[in-house]
Amino acid sequence: MNTQYEELKARLLEINDLESAAALLYWDQSTYMPPGGAAARGRQLATLGQLAHTKFTDSAIGRLLDALRPYEEQLDYDSDEASLIRVTRRDYERAVNLPAAFVAAMYSHTSEAFTVWTKARPENNFAAVQPYLEKTLELSRQAADFFPGYEHIADPLIDWSDYGMKATSVRAIFADLRAQLVPLVQAIAAQPVADDSCLKQHFPEDRQWAVGLEVVKRFGYDLERGRQDKTHHPFMTKFSLGDVRITTRVNEHDLGEALFGTFHEAGHALYEQGIRMDFDGTPLASGTSSGVHESQSRLWENIVGRGRPFWQHFYPKLQAEFPEQLGSVALDTFYRAINKVERSLIRTDADEVTYNLHVIMRFDFELDLLEGRLAVRDLPEAWRARYQSDLGVASPDDRDGVLQDVHWYAGLIGGAFQGYALGNILSAQFFDSAVRAQPAIIDEMAAGEFTTLRNWLTQHVYQHGRKYTAPELVERASGQPLNTEPYLRYLRTKYAELYQL
Amino acid sequence: MNTQYEELKARLLEINDLESAAALLYWDQSTYMPPGGAAARGRQLATLGQLAHTKFTDSAIGRLLDALRPYEEQLDYDSDEASLIRVTRRDYERAVNLPAAFVAAMYSHTSEAFTVWTKARPENNFAAVQPYLEKTLELSRQAADFFPGYEHIADPLIDWSDYGMKATSVRAIFADLRAQLVPLVQAIAAQPVADDSCLKQHFPEDRQWAVGLEVVKRFGYDLERGRQDKTHHPFMTKFSLGDVRITTRVNEHDLGEALFGTFHEAGHALYEQGIRMDFDGTPLASGTSSGVHESQSRLWENIVGRGRPFWQHFYPKLQAEFPEQLGSVALDTFYRAINKVERSLIRTDADEVTYNLHVIMRFDFELDLLEGRLAVRDLPEAWRARYQSDLGVASPDDRDGVLQDVHWYAGLIGGAFQGYALGNILSAQFFDSAVRAQPAIIDEMAAGEFTTLRNWLTQHVYQHGRKYTAPELVERASGQPLNTEPYLRYLRTKYAELYQL
Repeated sequence: MNTQYEELKARLLEINDLESAAALLYWDQSTYMPPGGAAARGRQLATLGQLAHTKFTDSAIGRLLDALRPYEEQLDYDSDEASLIRVTRRDYERAVNLPAAFVAAMYSHTSEAFTVWTKARPENNFAAVQPYLEKTLELSRQAADFFPGYEHIADPLIDWSDYGMKATSVRAIFADLRAQLVPLVQAIAAQPVADDSCLKQHFPEDRQWAVGLEVVKRFGYDLERGRQDKTHHPFMTKFSLGDVRITTRVNEHDLGEALFGTFHEAGHALYEQGIRMDFDGTPLASGTSSGVHESQSRLWENIVGRGRPFWQHFYPKLQAEFPEQLGSVALDTFYRAINKVERSLIRTDADEVTYNLHVIMRFDFELDLLEGRLAVRDLPEAWRARYQSDLGVASPDDRDGVLQDVHWYAGLIGGAFQGYALGNILSAQFFDSAVRAQPAIIDEMAAGEFTTLRNWLTQHVYQHGRKYTAPELVERASGQPLNTEPYLRYLRTKYAELYQL
Repeated sequence: MNTQYEELKARLLEINDLESAAALLYWDQSTYMPPGGAAARGRQLATLGQLAHTKFTDSAIGRLLDALRPYEEQLDYDSDEASLIRVTRRDYERAVNLPAAFVAAMYSHTSEAFTVWTKARPENNFAAVQPYLEKTLELSRQAADFFPGYEHIADPLIDWSDYGMKATSVRAIFADLRAQLVPLVQAIAAQPVADDSCLKQHFPEDRQWAVGLEVVKRFGYDLERGRQDKTHHPFMTKFSLGDVRITTRVNEHDLGEALFGTFHEAGHALYEQGIRMDFDGTPLASGTSSGVHESQSRLWENIVGRGRPFWQHFYPKLQAEFPEQLGSVALDTFYRAINKVERSLIRTDADEVTYNLHVIMRFDFELDLLEGRLAVRDLPEAWRARYQSDLGVASPDDRDGVLQDVHWYAGLIGGAFQGYALGNILSAQFFDSAVRAQPAIIDEMAAGEFTTLRNWLTQHVYQHGRKYTAPELVERASGQPLNTEPYLRYLRTKYAELYQL
């Protein structure tokens, strides 16, 4: 027992408790908090964030990390102890660059911006958020500038969410992805439009809620260690590995919104619930990157949840739940409806094929804003123009335009979106590896069983938490670096059959 | 602007943020937290409690308070600044006596004990809580012993919740109260039992919920600055003066439980919502004592909510909400039902007359346990014996006996109960003063209007927060010290008419 290591862990646990409390304050703000609580809540979040930051950047932690270097070097790279020290050192070196006052200002500002946004979006009022967004951009640039020596101003921000990636590397991957997707989208657009009217009937909220929960319990989401609540903009959060929660928005006139939203957040939650319990309270007890996290939400939402085998088992149950709405709708009609490709306005409602185009343009906007090539006041117009050129549609209002995503109103500009497209790519890469190792997964899905798939993911991805970086984890799990091939093959196979390409 | 005063306020605000976060962790634990979250939650509460305590007992605060003494002496006693310094000094002197490690152990233990209790109560399993309760008793004695020089070991604990009261003074008040109540209870028991079967029908939960909320909104509970959630053991909590929440338990087979429980918690919430908003985040922004707090929950629950004028207005609305259950029940029958006096097992369900006997015996048990005259293992039997002798009833199980109240399982033994009876006494004393000043209050209640009453209470009680001690506030608001006369007169008048005594 190394006493310095134990002291480090004790300090990290206290910081983790503060961060978990802040996560609960945020969850409450997004689910149940009355409007009158907003002002104090912003301040409380700032206080907890600042305290956690101050405690983490305490020079005592730096001294412990220095003192632990010889101990770490004796240990295997893969050992829990070496991994904890390594990951803590990486976080520490990042954190000490950010002054506590800046962190407090950032927490306080984003909490306020979020509150303004929740009102501005339904009112279609970009003017209300514009000054907040300008401040956010300024804070984002300041944040990056605390890390001098970057190649691109977005690099430090990308690095926070997808460690190891840079603006250049993401741009290269996205250029490749885009080059292959655009012809696929065009080929599909040349085919007759799929009919998804069966999803647009009236589906009572309580029954949608019950169905979604039933499915994610089958996936393996453990309600003894989690729960689901309503919110405006769904997210997953955790307060410990024993309390991993999802949130959902229900639309009574669109069955897909809550259903696939629930699968998506449950995918995130399965990742967190799958982390080794003995990591709880340490910096290892989280997903390793935004891209890998998103790979799990997208795997369960799309590869499983919009797949034919899954619905072979579940569709009769869904029909039984909604006999009036779906009793006379054939499985094939339903399957085509939930996989309808449509050039549309809302990222979170987008189909698998066009989704990445939504993400890539947001990533480009982030770079443009940070580089100063685009002003915040011009963003709504630039947004419309890019939707028109990339997807052939443009929102008449900002509500379904630049106001649709919470990210820039609850965090920084830069690094907020690339993880979604990286996650799509990785979802297929992981699934492909799982099925190659365990071909029975497909038949099990068709029988409503997910144990073999979940076990493979737990063994190769979930359990490790942050022990391995995303590039290390991807290499270990799939035997190769991030690679768009399985994803493009998955899309081409699935949509060639759906659209007779 | 005194810079030391400003520095004190800034430090207190940070501590308040930590305490508010801890309050939210507790609220969540009692409303929505899944079972898997319990272990980490206990630790998180301990961390926040310890941090707040460490920060508050920092010698820098002691130095600021010393340095501010000349400033305070120049100011009026009533000024906000002098009051803030005075109340902070009182809290500080109390807090520095409690070691941080003790506070952490106390938080951690009570959180764990609470979790065990929530399971043990439905299972009627006193054995499960007994070791926790023994530890609680030990911690309670230790807590008192950090304040040497007390007259009675319970005095320091009573002082925390009802500043200025001692075991001796409470015993004297309770002896007087008991002497007058026992003959009243006996006189009522000699009369025919009231029929409350109209309340014991099936009342769907969602409609009970809606009715309760409707009424407390009329009382003035502001849902822009509050909300109501379900829990096992109802309580009021606040995270800022803009976010004051109540919790309620609904029994579909007893209309009174949720209804009067909601009025009760809303009474607490009206007090907190009525505090001057510019006190927010300071130690002045709370109710001044347990007794005064309880006077407001009981005033709205009983003097208003079980009064004839109130129901003259609201009963037709209640009948309209529950036409099948109450359509043919006369107002007078309903009024008698909700004021049925019955010697019963459960404190929170007890009528106004017998309620104080429940409280007085718990107060006596606290003294006996602390003095060592009663062992925890003998408590269930002592409980049964005292119920038999005082109320002529005894529970066949512990669920409705010693396990019924959360207090000892979520806090210390000592000072937990006397506030309920002091509150009853004060509720009538305040109401009496309000009606003498504003006789229109009675007619307004009969018209479903509560503005004059609420305004009087806000002006004389609520707005001041902790600026005045309970004895000061009672004297200012009613022109005399705590006095059982208005309360006994209220009970005698009301129940003489109800039971034709």
